[in-house]
Amino acid sequence: MSTPIGIAVIGAGYWGPNLVRNAQATPGLRLEYLCDLNEARAREVLGQYSTVQVSGDLDAVLADPRVQAVAIATPAATHVDIALAAIAAGKHVLVEKPLAATWADGAKVVQAAEDAGVVLMLDHTYCYTPAVSHLRELLRGGELGTLQYLDSVRINLGLVQSDVDVIWDLAPHDLSILDSVLPEGIHPVSVAARGSDPLDVGQVCVAHLSIELSNGAIAHVHVNWLSPTKIRTTIIGGSQRTVVWDDLNPAQRLAVYDRSVEANDPSTLGVDVRNQTRISYRIGDMVAPALPEREALRSMMAEFAAAITEGRPALTDGRSGLRVLALLEAASESLRGNGVAVPVARD
Amino acid sequence: MSTPIGIAVIGAGYWGPNLVRNAQATPGLRLEYLCDLNEARAREVLGQYSTVQVSGDLDAVLADPRVQAVAIATPAATHVDIALAAIAAGKHVLVEKPLAATWADGAKVVQAAEDAGVVLMLDHTYCYTPAVSHLRELLRGGELGTLQYLDSVRINLGLVQSDVDVIWDLAPHDLSILDSVLPEGIHPVSVAARGSDPLDVGQVCVAHLSIELSNGAIAHVHVNWLSPTKIRTTIIGGSQRTVVWDDLNPAQRLAVYDRSVEANDPSTLGVDVRNQTRISYRIGDMVAPALPEREALRSMMAEFAAAITEGRPALTDGRSGLRVLALLEAASESLRGNGVAVPVARD
Amino acid sequence: MSTPIGIAVIGAGYWGPNLVRNAQATPGLRLEYLCDLNEARAREVLGQYSTVQVSGDLDAVLADPRVQAVAIATPAATHVDIALAAIAAGKHVLVEKPLAATWADGAKVVQAAEDAGVVLMLDHTYCYTPAVSHLRELLRGGELGTLQYLDSVRINLGLVQSDVDVIWDLAPHDLSILDSVLPEGIHPVSVAARGSDPLDVGQVCVAHLSIELSNGAIAHVHVNWLSPTKIRTTIIGGSQRTVVWDDLNPAQRLAVYDRSVEANDPSTLGVDVRNQTRISYRIGDMVAPALPEREALRSMMAEFAAAITEGRPALTDGRSGLRVLALLEAASESLRGNGVAVPVARD
Amino acid sequence: MSTPIGIAVIGAGYWGPNLVRNAQATPGLRLEYLCDLNEARAREVLGQYSTVQVSGDLDAVLADPRVQAVAIATPAATHVDIALAAIAAGKHVLVEKPLAATWADGAKVVQAAEDAGVVLMLDHTYCYTPAVSHLRELLRGGELGTLQYLDSVRINLGLVQSDVDVIWDLAPHDLSILDSVLPEGIHPVSVAARGSDPLDVGQVCVAHLSIELSNGAIAHVHVNWLSPTKIRTTIIGGSQRTVVWDDLNPAQRLAVYDRSVEANDPSTLGVDVRNQTRISYRIGDMVAPALPEREALRSMMAEFAAAITEGRPALTDGRSGLRVLALLEAASESLRGNGVAVPVARD
Repeated sequence: MSTPIGIAVIGAGYWGPNLVRNAQATPGLRLEYLCDLNEARAREVLGQYSTVQVSGDLDAVLADPRVQAVAIATPAATHVDIALAAIAAGKHVLVEKPLAATWADGAKVVQAAEDAGVVLMLDHTYCYTPAVSHLRELLRGGELGTLQYLDSVRINLGLVQSDVDVIWDLAPHDLSILDSVLPEGIHPVSVAARGSDPLDVGQVCVAHLSIELSNGAIAHVHVNWLSPTKIRTTIIGGSQRTVVWDDLNPAQRLAVYDRSVEANDPSTLGVDVRNQTRISYRIGDMVAPALPEREALRSMMAEFAAAITEGRPALTDGRSGLRVLALLEAASESLRGNGVAVPVARD
Repeated sequence: MSTPIGIAVIGAGYWGPNLVRNAQATPGLRLEYLCDLNEARAREVLGQYSTVQVSGDLDAVLADPRVQAVAIATPAATHVDIALAAIAAGKHVLVEKPLAATWADGAKVVQAAEDAGVVLMLDHTYCYTPAVSHLRELLRGGELGTLQYLDSVRINLGLVQSDVDVIWDLAPHDLSILDSVLPEGIHPVSVAARGSDPLDVGQVCVAHLSIELSNGAIAHVHVNWLSPTKIRTTIIGGSQRTVVWDDLNPAQRLAVYDRSVEANDPSTLGVDVRNQTRISYRIGDMVAPALPEREALRSMMAEFAAAITEGRPALTDGRSGLRVLALLEAASESLRGNGVAVPVARD
Repeated sequence: MSTPIGIAVIGAGYWGPNLVRNAQATPGLRLEYLCDLNEARAREVLGQYSTVQVSGDLDAVLADPRVQAVAIATPAATHVDIALAAIAAGKHVLVEKPLAATWADGAKVVQAAEDAGVVLMLDHTYCYTPAVSHLRELLRGGELGTLQYLDSVRINLGLVQSDVDVIWDLAPHDLSILDSVLPEGIHPVSVAARGSDPLDVGQVCVAHLSIELSNGAIAHVHVNWLSPTKIRTTIIGGSQRTVVWDDLNPAQRLAVYDRSVEANDPSTLGVDVRNQTRISYRIGDMVAPALPEREALRSMMAEFAAAITEGRPALTDGRSGLRVLALLEAASESLRGNGVAVPVARD
Repeated sequence: MSTPIGIAVIGAGYWGPNLVRNAQATPGLRLEYLCDLNEARAREVLGQYSTVQVSGDLDAVLADPRVQAVAIATPAATHVDIALAAIAAGKHVLVEKPLAATWADGAKVVQAAEDAGVVLMLDHTYCYTPAVSHLRELLRGGELGTLQYLDSVRINLGLVQSDVDVIWDLAPHDLSILDSVLPEGIHPVSVAARGSDPLDVGQVCVAHLSIELSNGAIAHVHVNWLSPTKIRTTIIGGSQRTVVWDDLNPAQRLAVYDRSVEANDPSTLGVDVRNQTRISYRIGDMVAPALPEREALRSMMAEFAAAITEGRPALTDGRSGLRVLALLEAASESLRGNGVAVPVARD
C-alpha cells in the first residue's frame, strides 16, 4: 500500500470520538490531529495512551502539509466556514450532516470543492450500513417492483438541540437514505410537513413529513424527540415485494415479503356487493437476508479514503448533501405554512 | 332478570356473524332474526343447528313486535336508510361504523333517534377493549400529565373496498378511539391529510392524517391497506408519562413509561455550545398493567343492552359517531386539497 | 356427499365445547348429542339457540343407532372405560390425550379397536397445525439434513391439575409432535426426567425431560405450570438447516435458518491455539414460509371423519397414542429415580 | 487520587482486547503491558497510535516492579500456571473463567493467593451487569419470595472449542450468575447433566444441566453451540414474583411479574371434578425496572481496582470461582454417567 492519507478530525464533541476511532482503524488513513477549541476535551477523548496530536488551532492544522484531509464534526452552524477554509487549503473534506443551514450555502461549498478538485463527502452514516446497501439493490435491481410507498419512523428520547429542530436533527438520516435508495428516474416533488413543540422550547420536537415522489408515491417520515420507546423502522412497499427494515432488531434487520396486491379489472366486478374484493393478493414466503456484520462508520471512512485515492466522487458526495438540504428547506417552509405542500428545488 | 330484549341482526356479510355470535351470548338480549337479502347466506351463517329465524324481508322484521332492537351490519351506503327505517319503527339501533357517508346524513339519524327516544349506538368496537378503557383512565385521570402527542399506526394487507377509501375504512377506529380517550376540554381543530393510490383503483390506499388538537398537540394517524406486515400501535405522549399500546402483543398490550422530558429555563443556558441540553429527562420504570381478558365485542353488546334497559345514551352514542364523521369529512376535503389543513366542524 | 356420520361429544367440561363447535362445522359429521353427567352444564355449553340434544345417559347415547362415532373429552381417568364401552357398541372413537393412564391400559383400548374394526384416534391437536405439517415435511423430506437436536419449551401459568402432574398434562403435546415429525428410522431410546413441586401440591409442577434418540441426538422438553410468561417454542437443529417454531408469534410461526455447522478435519488443525475453530459455519438467509391459516382442531375433526369414511387409520391413531404413553411412563419412572435414564418400551 | 495501579494484560487473543480497552479506561489503573507470545498480534491489538508496551516475555513482565496486577486472558489450560507465577511474584490476579480445569487445581491457586495476601478475582463479567445486580437484590431482598425454580438458556452459533466442551465454555456464565444471586442459605446439592455431540467433534456441543438446590428447587441450564438463533434468557420463579431476564432485549432486559400461584387447602376440594383448580392465581402488573446503562466489563475492572486498593475480596473472588468449578466437575461426572445425579462438593 502507498503512503497513507494524513487526516485531522475537527471537533471532539458528541460525534468526533467516533470519527477518531474509525480514522485510526481505516487502512489508508493516518490520523495526525484531533482539533478542538477545547484542547483538554480533545486530550480526554484521545486518552492517556495515544500518540495522536491535539491542537486547538485550526489554521495551524490546515497549514500542516501532512494533513491532506479533514473530517468535520463541529456544531452545524460552523460547517460551512470550516469546510470552505479546508477546501481553500486544498484539503479533502468529510463533513457531518447537515452540510449547511441553507441550500444556497451548501451549494457554495459544493462549488468550491468542485473548483478546487477535492473530494467533498457527507457523513450520511446510514447509507453505509449493510441494510441500506441491500435496500438499494432491492429497489434499483427491480426485485421490489414499482415503488408504492415508503414509511420511515425515527423516534426516541433524543437530545433537544439548541440550534436545530427535530427535522434538521433526525430527518437527514431518513432523507439521505431515501436519496440513496430511490431508483433512477424517481425524485421528490413536494414536501408537506407539520410539527409541534409541546415543551415550548421554541423548536419543533415532533414532526411528520409527507414527500410526494415523481411517480405519485408518498414517502412519509415521522421524527420525534419525545418518545420513551425507540423505533427505527422503514417500510418500503413495492408492486412485487415489500421490505421492512427494523434497525433495532439485529437478528433480523431486513424482512423481504414476497407479497403483492394487484388491482383486478373493475369491469369484471358486480355492483352492490359489500366488501367486494377489487384486488388480488399473492402471499409468499418472507426472507430475512443474511447481511454482513460490519460497522457503517468504518465503511463510510473507507469510502472517503477510496474516493480520495481514486479521485472520484464519494457515494454520499456534496450533491447528495444538497439534495437533502433541498428537502429540509422545503419541509421548514411547509412547517411555517401549516402543512401546505412545498415544491422541492432540483439541482 | 326481566324479559330479554328481542334483537335482529341485519346483514350476514363480513361483520354480521360476529354480531350474531355476541348477541346470542349476551344476557339481556334474545336474538330473533338474522336478516339478509341473501337468505341462503344468512342460513349458512347460522348453521344447521340453530333455532334463530332467517328473514330476507327487512320490513317484516321491523314489523315484528318481538324485535325491540336492531344491529346493522350492512354495506356502509345503506346504513342511513336502514337506521331511519328502524328508528321510525321504534327500534333501538346499533350500527356499524361509519354512521353515514356525510356528517349531514349522520345528523339526520341522530336527530331522528333523539326525537323517537330510542338508543342510537355506534359499534366502535375498539372503545370497548380493556386497553382503551385503561387509556381513557390514564388520560382523563391525569396520570399521563398534559397530552403532548398521539401517534396511531394501523397498517396491514387489507381488503381494498369498493365503496370507501382507506381513511373511511380504517381511520374510524383510530378516530373513535381518539374521541373516546381525549380529556375534557381538548378537541380536534383541523385535519391535514395526504394519501396515494399506487394501485390505480380509484381509492386512496395509503394515507396520513395530521390532526391538530385545541391544545396545540398533534394526533397523527397512518392507515395503509398495502402493508404485508400488520402494525397496530398507538403512542400517547404526556408530560408525566407516555403509554404505548401495541394491540398485536397480547402479552403486553399497554406499556406505561414513567419518563418525562422537561424544558430547562433557557436563561440558564450559555451560547455556542453544540448539542447543549435544553431539557431534562426523568427515566423511571415501565409498567405493563394487568388487563382483564374480555372480548370487546361482548362488552359493546352488553353496553347496548344496558343503554336500552337504563334508558341512557351508550358510551359510543350517535354524537360520538357524528364527531368521527366530522373528522372524516375534514380529512377527505384536505385530501382533495393536497394536504391543506381543514377546520373540523363542531357539533 | 353421502349421509353424514352421526357423532356424540362426551364431556362438556374444559375441552368439550371446542369439540362441539368443530363437530358442528365439519362437513361429513352430524352432531347428535352432547353428553355429560351434568346435563345443565351441557345445556349451557350448547346455549339457548341449539337444536343439538343433551343427554346425561352415556349408555342411551351409545345405544342410539344414529350415533356412529364419539369424541371423548372427559377427565383422563375415565378415558379407558368410556372408550372401551364405545368400541363395544361399535362406535368409532376420538379421545382426548392421554389415551390412558398406563401403557398397558392404552394397549387394551388399541387392541379392542383393532378387533372391532373401528377407528381409534387421539386428539393430538398440535399435529394438525400448519406449522407441524410443515415441520414434518422439512424433517422427513430431508431439507433439514440430519437431526442434531430438538428443544421444546412449553411454559405458562397453567391449571394445576388434581389428577395428573405437569408432565402428563403438558408434555403429551410435545411428545406427540415429536412422534409426528421424527423421520423414519429414528426413535426414542431412553428418557431422563427431573421435576420439582415447589408449591407442595403433591404433583410435579416444573419438569425437564431429556429424550435420547436412536441416532444419538437429544430431544429436550421443558414443561412448567408456574411461569408468568408463556413460551411455546421448539427448535429443531439439523445438519443443513435449523427451524425455530414460535407458536405465539402468528406473524412468523416458523423460521427456517439456512445455516449449518460442519466439523473440520482435525488433522488439519494445529495444537496449542486457543479458541481454534474446529468447525465451519455457513450463514445463509432465513425463510419464514407462508403457512395456510386454518384451525388445527378443524383439520383434526376432518381427519376423524375422513378416517371413518375411508376405513383407514387416522394420522394420530391409537398406536401414536401408545408411543406417547411409553414416553410418559418412562418419564414418570425416571422422575421417581431422580433422573436416571429409563429405556422406552417399543410397541 | 493516589498513584494508579500498574497492570499488565496477559493474552492478546479473543478476550484480551476487551481487557486492554477497559484497563485503559479505568481510573486507578495504568496499563503497562500487553503480553503475548505472539508479539505481532499484541502490537496489532494495540494499534499504531498506542504508547502501551508490548512484551512476549511473561517473566520479564512479572519482574517489572511497575506491574502490581495482571489480567489473564490466555487459553484455559494455562490459567493455573500463569496465575501461580503471578501470585508468586506478588501480583494481584484477575483471571478469565474458568479458574482452572479441576477443582483441586483451582483450590491451589486460591490457597496461594490467600497465603500471599493478594487479590484473586474471576472475570465473571455477567455478575457485574446492572441486570444481575438487580436480580441479586430481588432475590436476596425477599421481593421475589421463596425461590421456586430458575431456568437459564444460553444458545447460539458458538465457537466450538478445542480445549473445552460447551458446558465448560458457556455454563460458567450461568453458574457464576446463579452463585451470585442465590440467597443466603440456599446452595446447590446435586447436578444431573446430559449432552450430545452431533458433529462428532469429540466434545459435547449441546447440554442440559439440572441442578437441585438445597430447598428442593431446580435450577436448569441449557447451553448449545449449534443454534442459529441466539437466546439468552433466564427465568427466576418466586413465590411472590417472577422475573424474566432477556439479555438480548436492551429496551426491556428485566421484567418483574407481580404474579403468584398458591396451593389451596386440599381438604376444601371435592372429588371427581376434572381440571379442578388446586391453586389460586394472583395476576398483577409487570414492571420493567429502569436499569443504569453501564458496561459490565468496566464495572468488573473497577471492582478489581477497588478490591486491590481496599485490600478486600472482590465480589467474584477465588472462592466463587471454586464454587463454579465444583458445579462444572459434577456436571462432567454426570455427563459421563448418562445423567445420573452427582453431589456437588462444598467448599
